[in-house]
Amino acid sequence: MKILITGGAGFIGQRLAKRLLDRNELNGKPVTEIVLLDVALPNDDRLLSDERVRAETGDISDPAVLRRHIDTQTEAIFHLAAIVSGQAEADFDLGMKINLDASRALLEVCRAAGHKPRVVFTSSVAVYGGTLPDVVQDDTALNPQSSYGTQKAIAELLLSDYARRGFVDGRVLRLPTISVRPGLPNAAASSFASGIIREPLAGVRSTCPVDGETRVWLLSPKSAVEALIAGCEIDREKLGNRPIVNLPGLSVSVNEMVAALREVAGDEAAGRIDWQRDERIEKIVGSWPGAWNTARAEQLGLSGDENFADVIRAYIEEKRADERA
Amino acid sequence: MKILITGGAGFIGQRLAKRLLDRNELNGKPVTEIVLLDVALPNDDRLLSDERVRAETGDISDPAVLRRHIDTQTEAIFHLAAIVSGQAEADFDLGMKINLDASRALLEVCRAAGHKPRVVFTSSVAVYGGTLPDVVQDDTALNPQSSYGTQKAIAELLLSDYARRGFVDGRVLRLPTISVRPGLPNAAASSFASGIIREPLAGVRSTCPVDGETRVWLLSPKSAVEALIAGCEIDREKLGNRPIVNLPGLSVSVNEMVAALREVAGDEAAGRIDWQRDERIEKIVGSWPGAWNTARAEQLGLSGDENFADVIRAYIEEKRADERA
Ligand SMILES: NC(=O)c1ccc[n+]([C@@H]2O[C@H](COP(=O)([O-])OP(=O)(O)OC[C@H]3O[C@@H](n4cnc5c(N)ncnc54)[C@H](O)[C@@H]3O)[C@@H](O)[C@H]2O)c1
Ligand SMILES: NC(=O)c1ccc[n+]([C@@H]2O[C@H](COP(=O)([O-])OP(=O)(O)OC[C@H]3O[C@@H](n4cnc5c(N)ncnc54)[C@H](O)[C@@H]3O)[C@@H](O)[C@H]2O)c1
Repeated sequence: MKILITGGAGFIGQRLAKRLLDRNELNGKPVTEIVLLDVALPNDDRLLSDERVRAETGDISDPAVLRRHIDTQTEAIFHLAAIVSGQAEADFDLGMKINLDASRALLEVCRAAGHKPRVVFTSSVAVYGGTLPDVVQDDTALNPQSSYGTQKAIAELLLSDYARRGFVDGRVLRLPTISVRPGLPNAAASSFASGIIREPLAGVRSTCPVDGETRVWLLSPKSAVEALIAGCEIDREKLGNRPIVNLPGLSVSVNEMVAALREVAGDEAAGRIDWQRDERIEKIVGSWPGAWNTARAEQLGLSGDENFADVIRAYIEEKRADERA
Repeated sequence: MKILITGGAGFIGQRLAKRLLDRNELNGKPVTEIVLLDVALPNDDRLLSDERVRAETGDISDPAVLRRHIDTQTEAIFHLAAIVSGQAEADFDLGMKINLDASRALLEVCRAAGHKPRVVFTSSVAVYGGTLPDVVQDDTALNPQSSYGTQKAIAELLLSDYARRGFVDGRVLRLPTISVRPGLPNAAASSFASGIIREPLAGVRSTCPVDGETRVWLLSPKSAVEALIAGCEIDREKLGNRPIVNLPGLSVSVNEMVAALREVAGDEAAGRIDWQRDERIEKIVGSWPGAWNTARAEQLGLSGDENFADVIRAYIEEKRADERA
C-alpha cells in the first residue's frame, strides 16, 4: 500500500515512517511506498536510503502539490504538517493557511480522488480550554484559547463531516503533549515539557516557564507513533458517529516530571532547571487539560505509557543508540 | 449608529430591522442607518420606506461586497445570511461557501477595518448531535451530524478566536428552532416545526415527518429578535473567555405542540396533520438537543417564551394585524 505522510520530515513524521518501514504492514497490507511530503527533506539516512521511501518537498497549502501526491493508489494519509502553537499564535495568517486551509484542501483533494482513503489527522490538548474538569471527558466541550487550538478544532470538525458524508474514511487522534522530544527547542508553547528533561540530561541548563504545580498530559514519541498506527487501523464502524479519539497519556505535574528526572539522572541533572515564569506561555499551557478520560481509546485498543521515569529512561537509551549508530 | 444586517431580507433579518427601527437605539446610541445586505430585496414596505434603511443586494461570499458595506462607521453587525440545514446537506459546496467562507470573510473584513465592531453570529441547535444528555449543558461537546451544524460550529470557533485576539467584539447566539415562522415552508430540516402549526391554522393540511415523541427546542420569532438585540448589548467583559451563549427556549414534544394547537384552535385544526416519517429529516432533527441549560443566558439578561400555546396565539394575532394593515 502507498502511504502519504504530510509533515513527513517533521519529528513525528520521520519516526512514524521508520516504524511503518519496520512493520512493513498497515491495515493488513504490505507497505510498498511511503511519500514524505514536507517543505523540508527528512534528515534520517535510514529513511533516505530505503527504496520504499520517496521524499518530496512541497507546500501543502498549494492544492496542486496535494493533487500531485494524492491519487487513487494513496490508501492511507497521515496528515501531520502543521504550524505549532507558539508560531500560530504569533503569526495568525500562517496558522490559518496551514492548519486550516491546507487541511481542508487535503480533504477536498481526497474527495475529488473519490476512493475514500483512510485519513488520520493529529489534534491536540489545545482544542480544550477555559474552565475544565480535572479529568476532561469525551463529551467535554471544546473552548480553545489559542489560534492553534481553534484551527485544530476546526480541522477536526471538517474531517468529521467529510467522514460522515463518506468523502474520506477519516479519524482524528488527539495527542497529549509529546515528551521527551529530542533535538532543539521549538516554537510550541509546550516546548519546555521536553526541554526541562532533555537539556539537563545533556548537561545544559533549561528554563521552565510555568509553575511547578502545572499539570500536563504527556505521551512519549514511541507511544505516539504506535497510537497513530493503531488509530489508522481502527475499523470505521467502531468509531460510530464520532471519529475523534482522545489518546491515552500520563497526567503529571511539572514538579513530578522533575522528580522523575531526579530519580533517573540524579540531583545534579534535576538542578539544571531555572524557574522563570512566562505569562504568555502560562496562559496557553494553563488552558490545556491536565488529564482526560481514556476509556474509549483503551476500548479501541490504543495504549500509552506506564510512568514518566520509564519515558525518560527510554529517551536516554534511544539517544545512546543513535550516538552509537 | 450604523448597523449592518447580512441576510437582512430574510425572515429574522427583516423582523430584527423593524424592531431596531422602533427602538431607535442600540448599545445606547440612536439608530441612524440600517444596511440590509442580501441577495434579495426585503419585501416589507415599512422597511423600504424608512429613510434610515438602505437595502443592498449583493452576495456575501464576495469579499468585495463585504468591504463595500463594512467601514469604520459600521458599529454593529448581525450576520444572519446563511444556507439553511436541508439545503446545506443537499449542496455541500454551497453551504461551505456561504456558512463558512463568507462568515470568515466577514470577520476578515472587520479585522482589516480595525475598529473592532460588535459582531453577532447566529448559531443553532444543529451544532450538537450524537448521544446527548436530556438537557444539554454549556460544557457539552459539539458533535454536529449535518454539514450545516458543522459549518455553524466552525463559524463559532472562528468568531471566538477573532474575538479573543481583539479583531472583533464578537458574540455567538445559539438559537433554538424558530416557531411559528410565517410564510412558506423552507429547506430547513426544521421547517415542519412551523408548518404543522401554520398550515392547519390556515386550513391547509401539513405533513409531520418526525415521530410525535420527538422533543424540539423552540423560540418564537419575537423572542428571538429580542434575544439578538439583548445579546448584542451584553458587555464584552461579562462573556469572559466564552462568547457563545445558548439562548432560552421551550422544550416541547411534537405531540405537545399539537396539543397546544388543539388548545388554541380546536380539534379541526389539530386534525389537519398527516404523520409520515421521513428518515432523512428524522435523522437530522433527532440529532438535535430537545433542551439545553439556560442559566447562563438568563444571568446575562436574555429571556424566552412562557409556553407554546401563547406563542401560537401571538402568531395568530400578528397574522391578523398584518392582514388588516
Ligand atoms: N509534538 C507534539 O507535542 C504534538 C502534540 C499534539 C499534536 N501534535 C501534532 O502532530 C503533528 C506533527 O507534530 P510534530 O511534533 O512532528 O511537528 P513538527 O513541527 O516536527 O513537524 C511538522 C512538519 O510539518 C512541516 N510543514 C509545515 N508547514 C508545511 C507546509 N506548508 N507544507 C508542507 N510541510 C509543512 C514542517 O516542515 C515540519 O517538518 C502536528 O500536526 C502537530 O500539530 C504534535
Ligand atoms: N429560523 C430558524 O429556525 C433558525 C434557527 C437557528 C439559527 N438560525 C440562523 O439565523 C439566521 C437567520 O435565519 P432566517 O430564519 O432568517 O433564515 P432565512 O433563510 O429566512 O434568511 C437568510 C437570508 O440570507 C440570505 N442569503 C443567503 N445567501 C446569501 C448570500 N450569499 N449573500 C447574501 N445573502 C444571502 C437569504 O437570501 C435570506 O434572505 C441564519 O444564520 C440561520 O442559520 C435560524
